[in-house]
Amino acid sequence: MIVGKVVGSLVSTRKNDNLIGSKFMIIEPLSKMQGENSRLVAVDNVGAGIGETVLVATGSAARVGCGMPDAPIDAAIVGIVDDGMGL
Amino acid sequence: MIVGKVVGSLVSTRKNDNLIGSKFMIIEPLSKMQGENSRLVAVDNVGAGIGETVLVATGSAARVGCGMPDAPIDAAIVGIVDDGMGL
Amino acid sequence: MIVGKVVGSLVSTRKNDNLIGSKFMIIEPLSKMQGENSRLVAVDNVGAGIGETVLVATGSAARVGCGMPDAPIDAAIVGIVDDGMGL
Amino acid sequence: MIVGKVVGSLVSTRKNDNLIGSKFMIIEPLSKMQGENSRLVAVDNVGAGIGETVLVATGSAARVGCGMPDAPIDAAIVGIVDDGMGL
Amino acid sequence: MIVGKVVGSLVSTRKNDNLIGSKFMIIEPLSKMQGENSRLVAVDNVGAGIGETVLVATGSAARVGCGMPDAPIDAAIVGIVDDGMGL
Repeated sequence: MIVGKVVGSLVSTRKNDNLIGSKFMIIEPLSKMQGENSRLVAVDNVGAGIGETVLVATGSAARVGCGMPDAPIDAAIVGIVDDGMGL
Repeated sequence: MIVGKVVGSLVSTRKNDNLIGSKFMIIEPLSKMQGENSRLVAVDNVGAGIGETVLVATGSAARVGCGMPDAPIDAAIVGIVDDGMGL
Repeated sequence: MIVGKVVGSLVSTRKNDNLIGSKFMIIEPLSKMQGENSRLVAVDNVGAGIGETVLVATGSAARVGCGMPDAPIDAAIVGIVDDGMGL
Repeated sequence: MIVGKVVGSLVSTRKNDNLIGSKFMIIEPLSKMQGENSRLVAVDNVGAGIGETVLVATGSAARVGCGMPDAPIDAAIVGIVDDGMGL
Repeated sequence: MIVGKVVGSLVSTRKNDNLIGSKFMIIEPLSKMQGENSRLVAVDNVGAGIGETVLVATGSAARVGCGMPDAPIDAAIVGIVDDGMGL
């Protein structure tokens, strides 16, 4: 997983049916976690808000681990980070 | 997922049988999402056109989430982006 | 998926049993698709030859989508590119 | 898999239910394994401590191979490295 | 898949139970295949030795394709390279 900050959100009206109801957030990974220009879009699974520091799971873990095995989701916010040592 | 712009399309006559009927689009990821030289080919799942800004899912999410679990697809356009904050 | 050029092939006598009969091709991705030093080895699923421009699927899509779900394959040539706009 | 050093840990109170009880460690990959700015968060599967050199599995291997197939986990510490030649 | 050279091995006493008996080798990818600082650890599936040039499969292909679907393995040596054109 990586840790990033929620820096925005996305609106998509015309989309895959399995994505209806999903909230798309834009994540800026922490600089120690990824280089520049590595923002990604993650579906929110925990009720995160803009500006919060979050834990993001990618790959099949995002859909299988969030109860959406049939949705075309490859990244999901799976935790709000309270505190971290070494971030 | 990443957000990118549809910059082209691809024609392939001789291909895997599970790809027959698929529309292949060339995606240029937004500069904040990926570095340079990172174009990819995604199957269109929502009827996207050249020049549109789209949401792209990669990995197993692309085939499983788009009802093509047996096709050799690792990227799919799963939404048209209407609006975004933080892109 | 990415688009690349077939620049070579590989011979491996001692290999995993599920790879027997597979043809291994060396792919040089197009420069707009990946940075330098990103050649990869893909199993040929469509009868591609040296010098041809091909569509390559990676990850689980390569084995599941090419009828080799039990083979240790993470990249496969799944189409010959006839023509492309935006490559 | 990659080898890295455990450099920290993470606390997340509000998280996906399948992550309850998981210990999140921050991993700094060895410099020969990855470039700079490539820290990641891995769930601890073997009882690793801060400062230890560990083996980390990523992707679906992390959840399926650690008995947590339904958790949104894409990286796990799966071994403590005693000794290595060529690290 | 990528091609690399076996440059070392790894010893881990305390590890995930599904890894008991596995031989961990350190792989240096060929320079045309990956940039610098991209060594990885792969489980040996074919009896490779230090100094040999090998074919490495990554992702779910490594565990599913090597008969270890329940092991936390994301990379495996699946062939010894005899000869290659374009490497």
